[in-house]
This record gives sequence, C-alpha cells and structure tokens, in this order.
Amino acid sequence: MGAPTVTNAYNEEQAANTQLNELIERFRPYAAEGKCASYIPALANAEPSHLGITVIQPDGTIWRAGNWDVPFTLQSISKVLSFIAVCVARGIPYVLERVDVEPTGDPFNSIVRLEMHKPGRPFNPLINAGAITTASILPGETPAQKLAAIIRLIERLTGKQARVNEDVFQSEWGTAYRNRSLAYYLKETGFLACDVEDAIEVYLKQCAIEVTTEDIAMIGLVLAHDGYHPLQREQLLPKQVVRIAKALMLTCGMYNASGKFAAFVGVPAKSGVSGGIMTAVPPRVRPAGTPCADGCGIGLYGPAIDEVGNSKAGGLLLQHLAEEWDLGIF
Amino acid sequence: MGAPTVTNAYNEEQAANTQLNELIERFRPYAAEGKCASYIPALANAEPSHLGITVIQPDGTIWRAGNWDVPFTLQSISKVLSFIAVCVARGIPYVLERVDVEPTGDPFNSIVRLEMHKPGRPFNPLINAGAITTASILPGETPAQKLAAIIRLIERLTGKQARVNEDVFQSEWGTAYRNRSLAYYLKETGFLACDVEDAIEVYLKQCAIEVTTEDIAMIGLVLAHDGYHPLQREQLLPKQVVRIAKALMLTCGMYNASGKFAAFVGVPAKSGVSGGIMTAVPPRVRPAGTPCADGCGIGLYGPAIDEVGNSKAGGLLLQHLAEEWDLGIF
Amino acid sequence: MGAPTVTNAYNEEQAANTQLNELIERFRPYAAEGKCASYIPALANAEPSHLGITVIQPDGTIWRAGNWDVPFTLQSISKVLSFIAVCVARGIPYVLERVDVEPTGDPFNSIVRLEMHKPGRPFNPLINAGAITTASILPGETPAQKLAAIIRLIERLTGKQARVNEDVFQSEWGTAYRNRSLAYYLKETGFLACDVEDAIEVYLKQCAIEVTTEDIAMIGLVLAHDGYHPLQREQLLPKQVVRIAKALMLTCGMYNASGKFAAFVGVPAKSGVSGGIMTAVPPRVRPAGTPCADGCGIGLYGPAIDEVGNSKAGGLLLQHLAEEWDLGIF
Amino acid sequence: MGAPTVTNAYNEEQAANTQLNELIERFRPYAAEGKCASYIPALANAEPSHLGITVIQPDGTIWRAGNWDVPFTLQSISKVLSFIAVCVARGIPYVLERVDVEPTGDPFNSIVRLEMHKPGRPFNPLINAGAITTASILPGETPAQKLAAIIRLIERLTGKQARVNEDVFQSEWGTAYRNRSLAYYLKETGFLACDVEDAIEVYLKQCAIEVTTEDIAMIGLVLAHDGYHPLQREQLLPKQVVRIAKALMLTCGMYNASGKFAAFVGVPAKSGVSGGIMTAVPPRVRPAGTPCADGCGIGLYGPAIDEVGNSKAGGLLLQHLAEEWDLGIF
Repeated sequence: MGAPTVTNAYNEEQAANTQLNELIERFRPYAAEGKCASYIPALANAEPSHLGITVIQPDGTIWRAGNWDVPFTLQSISKVLSFIAVCVARGIPYVLERVDVEPTGDPFNSIVRLEMHKPGRPFNPLINAGAITTASILPGETPAQKLAAIIRLIERLTGKQARVNEDVFQSEWGTAYRNRSLAYYLKETGFLACDVEDAIEVYLKQCAIEVTTEDIAMIGLVLAHDGYHPLQREQLLPKQVVRIAKALMLTCGMYNASGKFAAFVGVPAKSGVSGGIMTAVPPRVRPAGTPCADGCGIGLYGPAIDEVGNSKAGGLLLQHLAEEWDLGIF
Repeated sequence: MGAPTVTNAYNEEQAANTQLNELIERFRPYAAEGKCASYIPALANAEPSHLGITVIQPDGTIWRAGNWDVPFTLQSISKVLSFIAVCVARGIPYVLERVDVEPTGDPFNSIVRLEMHKPGRPFNPLINAGAITTASILPGETPAQKLAAIIRLIERLTGKQARVNEDVFQSEWGTAYRNRSLAYYLKETGFLACDVEDAIEVYLKQCAIEVTTEDIAMIGLVLAHDGYHPLQREQLLPKQVVRIAKALMLTCGMYNASGKFAAFVGVPAKSGVSGGIMTAVPPRVRPAGTPCADGCGIGLYGPAIDEVGNSKAGGLLLQHLAEEWDLGIF
Repeated sequence: MGAPTVTNAYNEEQAANTQLNELIERFRPYAAEGKCASYIPALANAEPSHLGITVIQPDGTIWRAGNWDVPFTLQSISKVLSFIAVCVARGIPYVLERVDVEPTGDPFNSIVRLEMHKPGRPFNPLINAGAITTASILPGETPAQKLAAIIRLIERLTGKQARVNEDVFQSEWGTAYRNRSLAYYLKETGFLACDVEDAIEVYLKQCAIEVTTEDIAMIGLVLAHDGYHPLQREQLLPKQVVRIAKALMLTCGMYNASGKFAAFVGVPAKSGVSGGIMTAVPPRVRPAGTPCADGCGIGLYGPAIDEVGNSKAGGLLLQHLAEEWDLGIF
Repeated sequence: MGAPTVTNAYNEEQAANTQLNELIERFRPYAAEGKCASYIPALANAEPSHLGITVIQPDGTIWRAGNWDVPFTLQSISKVLSFIAVCVARGIPYVLERVDVEPTGDPFNSIVRLEMHKPGRPFNPLINAGAITTASILPGETPAQKLAAIIRLIERLTGKQARVNEDVFQSEWGTAYRNRSLAYYLKETGFLACDVEDAIEVYLKQCAIEVTTEDIAMIGLVLAHDGYHPLQREQLLPKQVVRIAKALMLTCGMYNASGKFAAFVGVPAKSGVSGGIMTAVPPRVRPAGTPCADGCGIGLYGPAIDEVGNSKAGGLLLQHLAEEWDLGIF
C-alpha cells in the first residue's frame, strides 16, 4: 500500500511544483512595478526580478519554485521572532506592559504617536518603536546575549544554523538615524530597558539575519500549528504566545496595507523591506483535495517592494494562492 | 438510532445552557467595572447589571442564557451591516475608493486623520467617519431608501422584522455634533455622497435599530459561514464581501482594544456602545466534542461598557468562551 | 506761517503720492506669482493685477495710489474686528476663557488641534475655529444682532456706512462645509455659544463686509494709536483691547507666514484671502523726516494671493515700505 | 548745570531702586505657585524664593534689586544668542533655509511637527529642534569652536568673561534623551549639519553658560537698540539680524505662553527653565518722565517656573512693569 501512496505523493508534488513554477513566471513581471529598498545600500543591490517561494505542509511535503534559495535578510520579519522570544523569556504580561498590541495606521517608522499618546508605550511590536523596545527587553545583559535569544529561536525552528549578514548590518548601522531617534525617545519615556546603542545593535542585527524562503516557510508552519513542530513532532513554543504573534501578523504584519491584506488575502503574514514574506496558514475546514487543506507555512521572496514596503510580486502571488487554495482564516 | 441522538442533543443542550447560565452569573459582577454610555440619554437608562448571551450553531442548536432577550440598539454593530449592504449594492471597488479598510489606532470619533492624510479618505468603515461615508453611498436617494437597504439585509438574515427605536434616534439626533462635524469635513473633501443631514439621519437610524442577542447571533452565524445561511440553506451574501467584513471586525471591530481582542480572543467581533457584541466563529479544525466545533454565531449583551466602549462583562465572558471552547481563528 | 506749511505739506503729499504710484507699478507684476482665491466663486472674479494702497497719518494726511478705491470684502481681516467687538462687549477675561491668544503654526482652517489639545479651546481668534467661537459670543440673540455689533464698530471707526456683499456671502454660504465642520466640533466641546447655522451666518457675513483700502487704513490708524482716533480726536476703543488685537495681528495675522512677516516686516497686520491687508504702524522713535514718523494706518489691496493666503504684490510692497520708512516696531 | 542733573539722576536712581525693591518683595511670594525645574538635577537645587532684576537704560543708568546677582544658566535664553551668532556667521538666507521663523503652539521639545510637515525643517530656532539645528551650523568644525562663537558674542555684548557651568552641563549631558531623539531625527532628514553628539554638546553647553540678571539686561539693551551698544557706542550686530531675533522673541520667546505674553506684556523677551528672562524694550514714543522712555534692557531671575516653563514671579513682575512704565511695543 505504501509504494503507490509515495508515487501519488510524488506526482502530486511534481504537479504542485509545476503549478508554482508557472505562477512564479506569471507574477514575476509585476516586480517591475516595485523597486528594491534603497535606504540600505546592501539591499539596493538585490536582483529586482527575483521571485521565489517555498510551501511546507505538516506532513513534510515541500514545494519550491523560482528563486526560492536566494538568501535575504529578515528585516521586519524578525520583529515577530523577537516578540516571541521575549514573551517566552519574560512572560506575556511583562511584555504587554512595555509594548501594546494595537494596530496604528501610521508609517512603520513613525514617532508621532509616542508623543501624542501618554505615556508613550509603543502601540505594537511590529512597528519600529515597538520592535526597539522589544529588543531592549530580550534576556541577557549584552547585545550579543540578547541577539542570541533570537538566533537560538530561529535555529530551533528551522533546524539550521542562522547568522547575521555583516555587510547588511554595517550598511544600516551607520545611517540608522531614525531608529536612534525612536530609541532615544523611548529612553526618555522609560520604554527602553537598555542603552540606546545596545538596543540599536540588537535590532539591526536581528534585521540582518540571513534566511531563505525555506527557512521562513518552516517557521510559518510551526506558527500555523500554534508552536507545535509537525516534523519534529514537538511543541516548541507556548500556544498562547504564538496565537498572539499570529494576531499581530494579521492586524499589523504588512505595514500600512495590513488591513487590505487581511481583507483580500486573510492569512497571518509578516513582510520585510528585503522582500520576504513569512506566512502561517492555520489548519481550517477546507474542501478535501484542496492543496494545503491542513495548513502550511509559506515563504516568499521578491525584493522589489511597493510603496508601503511589501514585495510587489510576492504579495500578488500570495493573494492568488490564497484565493485559489482558499487559505483565508475568516 | 434517531431517538438517542435527540436525547443526547437535548442533554447536551441542557448542559450547555446550564454552563452558560453559570458563566453569566460568574461574569455579571464585572459589569460594575464599566458603566452605561451616558452621552446618549436613552442608553444611560439601561440596567447596567444585565448580561445575556445567545449561541447559534449551524445545525440549528441554540443556547441562551441570562438577559438574552432584552432588546438593545445596534449602535456601531450596524457599521458592519451597512458596509455589507453597500458592497452588495455598489460592488467592492466602488466602496474601497471611498473608504479604506485599514485600522487606525485612533478613537472611533476622531477627525484628525481626515486632515493629516490627504485626500481624506476615511481609513475604515467601522470608525464613525467611514460609517458616515458608507451611509451616504447606500443605494437610494432618500434617507428612508438608504436605511431600507440595511433594514432589508437584517430582516433577510434574522428572518424577523427590524425597526428603529425612535426614542434612541431622537435622543442622538439633537446632539450629534461630533458626527455632523465629521460629515461636513467629509462633504468638503468629497467623501460624502449626499446631504449632511441625510447622511446623519441614515447613520443615526441604523445605530438605533433594535435587536436582541438572538438576532446578532444569527447574523454572526451567517457571517461565520461566509454568507451561507445554514438554517435557511441558502447563500445570502457574496463570500468575498463577508470575508472582508470579518477581516474588518477582527482588525477594527472592538474599538481601540481591537488588537488586544484579536490577540487574546481571536474571533471576528463587533461591539457597540449599547453593550452588544456580535461574533462570527468560522468553522475550523477543532478537537471532536468541543462545543461549536463547526463554528457558530454568538450574540452578547451587557450595557455597562469599559473606557474604550466595549461591554465589560460581555467581553470577559466572550474571552472565557474563546479559551474554553478554542474558538480562535489563529 | 500757515501758508508755507500748507505748501510744504502739499508738495510732500504730491511727492509721496508720486512715490507710491511708482511703487505700485513696480510691485504690480508680482501679482502674476499669486492667484485669486478660487474656493469662493465671487472672489475668483477679481482682477488679479489690481494693486492699491492708502496710507493715513495721524495729522490727517492721506496718500493713495493704484487701485486704492476698488471695493473688496474683509474676509479674515474681519476676525480682528469681531475680536475687538466681543472684548468690548464681554470683557477680556470672558473672551479669553473661550478662545486663547496663542499662535499655532497650523493652517487657518485646521481642526486637528481642537481634538489633540483638551478641552478644545481654539488657540486664537484669527484662525477659523477661534473666529467662529468669537462670532458665537458676540452680543445679541440673533445673527443680525451679532453682526450689527461688528458693523457698528466699523462704521464708528471709518465714519462711513458698511454693508455686506450679498453675492459673496451667498457664494460662501452654500459651500462652507469646512467651517461648519469646525463649528459642530466646537459645539460638541462647548466652545460655541449659539446655533451652528447662526454662528456660520454671522461669520460669513462679517467676512463679506465690503471695504476699500481707505477704510482699513483708517481702522489701522486707530489701532496704531491704541484706540484713539486722531482725526475724530476721541478714544473709541479701550487701549488694552487694542494692544491685544495688535499682538494677535503680529503673531498670527498673516496666516502661516506670520512669523516671517514679523521678522521681515515687523508691523501688526492682518490679511484676508480677498487680497486685503490692514496694517497698524504705532508711533515710534524714528529719524526726523522719515515718512510716517508718528505712525500710520496702511490699507492694501491686491487680490492675487500666495500659497498661504496673503496678497502677493501687497505683501512685497508693504515689506518694501517697512524697510524704506523704517516702520518696524522691534 | 551738571551737578544738579547728577543729583537728580542719583535721586531718581534711588527712587527707582526703592520702587524695584518693593516690587521684588511684592512679587516674590508668587514664586510659591511655581517650582524649580526638576529634570535637570543642578537646577532643582536653586532657591525657589529667589527673585532679582536689573534694568539698564541707554544712558548707562542701572537699577538693581533683589537677588539680581545670583548666577544662573542661560538655558533657552541661549537660543536667541546662537541664532544671532549663526546669522552673523552664515548670513540670514543660509540660516532660514535650515530653520524657519514661524511660531508653532507645540511644546518646546515636541517632535511631532518634524514628521508631519515635510521636509522636516524646524519651525523656529527657539524650540529645541530649531536650536539643535542652529547649533549644528555654527561656524567651526569642533564643538569647542562652535561654542566659542556664542561665548565670544556674549563677552562682546556684556564686556565680561563668560563660562560654562560644568556641573549643569554634566547633569544634562547624561540624560538628554529627548534632545538626542530630536537630533537624530534632524540628522535623518538632513537638517543637522554635524554629528549628533557634537550638536548636543554645543547645545547643552550653550544652555549651561552662566550669567546674572545684569548680563542679560545688558544684552537686552543692545538688542533693544538694534545691535547698537549705547554704552560702548558701537554697532556690534547687524540691525536686520537683531530685528529678526526680537520678532522671534515676541512670537516664540515665552514657550507656550508667548501669545499671552505678547498680548499682556508686549515686549520681546526670552525665558529659560532656569528662571531667567531676557527682555529688550525698544525706544518708543512714551510720555516724558516715564521710566525707560528711551527703552532699556531688563534681566530677571526667579527659578520657580510655571507649568509652561516661565519664571512665575519674574513673569508677573515684568507684566507689572510693562503696564506701569508703558513698555509695550504695540
């Protein structure tokens, strides 16, 4: 009985890979409507026409297509991971006292709300202000120790070594004026728990951790299953922490298009200006035979981003899959 | 085979009703931490200790407890219904051009963002500015015709007649200065499609439509099933419109606690200052034997509201059920 | 002794008129860099190349040049007069409780600050919000009575009849959405003392009062002399009220260029979108022989306005005179 | 003829000193309604009941009373001096391109406007953002050189050596988070011309320059006379620069009470949180026999400040003198 199943699975996988490859070529031209982030020199050098995807299902099936194995840096995707790491280390109430979980409608690097809403608690951990606060309360005394908490989490989830891309880090470090402005503001209002330069170092290094679509697809898969790793068959993260993380991804994960993404795609996802999108598709009652009926993790990469900061081609491809495969959680 | 099933179902229903009644009494005291909305005289007269709930499942099972049958007015819950009505009548692109679907982090009656973000398109239809724009583009020339579109929708979903509570309407009409301020602002920027007074009349009347927890539970059930009415066995609303409505409820439905509600409760819900909460729990893979494993609609009523505008006891009760029954969509 | 003086005065006057006529022709071309206000149809019909001036000194000398006698409506210049009228009628403390006297840096029709600064007292009477509050606390029950208080004040100061240009009023009345938005906001926060429509009627009618440069030069002369009318030889207004009015003109009188105007021109002045500028030049120690050494009132008219709302050619001409004649008060 | 004049002058001076001493004791109790700035430890140690004044007239008459000789640090008063120094060194157009001269209505340390108004040019040099920009464009490469430009200016105007109070500087340096936040924001938008730490060092050291009421009275006197030093009989500063500085003092010099100060006191003045007020009273036509009829400089010191940052007793004393001696410029 086993052999035919394998064959079927193999054929299915072939078919899926073929379909994904077709979609990659169909959506790749939309990259021309975006452009690579230019404020970080190392990102500006990415190949704008790149588009890649990895889909991982709980049974271990992996579909890959396009430039799925081009390495890129996490950038804002890392905000989800630092939030999870700090909740695990400190407990949810400790974290919520220092950073709220409310969407804002403001640009990701906005400082206005810190002044307008006393006492200046950042509205959520996925905007820069909140992510810098989060970095400052990671466990450990030194930037290296704080960063290690995130690195360890990623390595535990992906089963692979993770490292900081030093070029990208250096390229941001010298010009991170706006982030330092945010950090000093938070320092004054008491929402930064370490030195400004230490917090900025942790934050920029977590942004510069290098991954591929496979890595973030795998992480997305574990998030989809509430912290349970279906391949390692182990509960790696507390369910409640992961649920909050997914709620944040849905309400604030796609920059100022988060609402439209929730409305038209409907899955928890987090993007970064490097062009990555990490998606967690929870299991849901779906018609039999639908791809990914039991949920999945999806990793996307397309470095040409739109005006709000999301991968242009990647976002459109994800929207197409969500409709085609009925991935939405609503 | 049928009889025992019936008996089981009956016993189950009894058990559930008993459980809900116990929960009502357990959470009722929290009403003391909130208070009835005072800016609308007719609302201030509500009995603050009231707390009621109705749960309706797709198989028709109905659980009711507490003050489930006390009538109250929809208030902001009506914003979901007018949005659906206008999308059905005008098409989604027409509506999205006039009102965005992004959360804001601002108070529900805020006017600031209309001036700060050109050209002043309201950020979403669940804040007052967006709801007033929505009211203005409802089909029909007169306020009566526009209101009829919402009334018809409600009657179609609940199978019962719906009517405006004239006392509540009159009580708001005379003092709706802030809403008129918003409406005139929208008129100037071109985001109001009818006369100010007409739009305010429609908006305040839709807010004053009277319901019970059963009515909004039934509407929540249909939303949970993407517009399909499981009891009437008919697709009443377009799936995509309902999906967008649920995304809006999750990202913006609980006033400025929407993010926390998404994080800690995790179901699409919309509250009103009258103390109602309409909840749509979509089907999801849940452990067998879990109550509402196939999703449900939940209607809650508890007129003592907290500082952001949500029913104090109702919100806590819903959070308890979401944890107990694993209702969250993430 | 009298005759030669007369001759000298006459010659001086001739010389001054000649000089002013030359300046008019020199600055008239700058009108091309501005344009007539278009949001009020009746203003859009003004002749953009018009430029006129009247200068009145305390000894009764009057210099006139260019289109000094073209009638135009007061628009925002009226805000100074309604503020004076209401201070005279109600006393300064009563007025200050309802409208502050602080500059804002915001656009004249901004609503943001009303929401951001509790309890929403308008920052000064020369922005629309403050002017509408001022209109609402003018003495009298009806709009006609309230308006009469301003009309009487103008007639007392100019010695001529004043009347509302009905065309301009009607042309604003139908589309004053933004002002109604402000008024309803003020109504909600308690900073509007009469009906919204009544306040708007008073406000728009005061804006539509018709004058010439001679009228506002005469008013400016009286303000320059702290409420003492040098020609009528009578103290018409309380000194302290006039001092506050001049401080307001200097700090907030020229829309969002008030600071630059204070820095580079340095005299209390108030402009209107119709292109008028009313200027009060207080007596000051000036070199003997300087024109207007004892102060003066200056009325300017040039309907082509710049992007912040001030007469383009009129502002430049006034700046030139201030430098040439050393008019600045600093 | 000389002797009696001297006697008269002497008697007058005695009388004036006596009057001032009486006023000091009359207004000193109002200090209890304010309190010393606490965010800078070194300022919190000041004696709150101190109140002192020096008045210097162009003929060299000096009146002193109360704690006129207690040294204090310039704090925000230094902003006027750095603005003058930079205008002298760079020319007015260069400076205006980098910092505007418009009042704001916002708190002195606000960052909101930098984000809300593109491209982020500070609104004026008397708010912190503008003062930090100003510090960064002072002539010189090093902080020491930039600071020297201000020190030299002060020494030239007072004829005395000026020095930085190192304790106060150190006490601010370690906790100047908000100012660093502003500086990094300005760095990102291109409105900071040197390193952040250098700009902050210059800015905090200029704030920590130590003076007495006599020093700022003397500087006020020179400003009153448009840069001409009546005692040194030399034009020390360009008239236009000084006129702009006085316009700024009047429109923005007294924090968020600048408008009320202009309305009720009516003289160019600049306060600091240390409790100093530097006032420039220009010559003006005043009744013969009025004290200071030819203008004067007034230095005040009273370290107990009100909620907006101005010396409580000092402000009231100045308002009294302005009314009594008719000092207002309007």
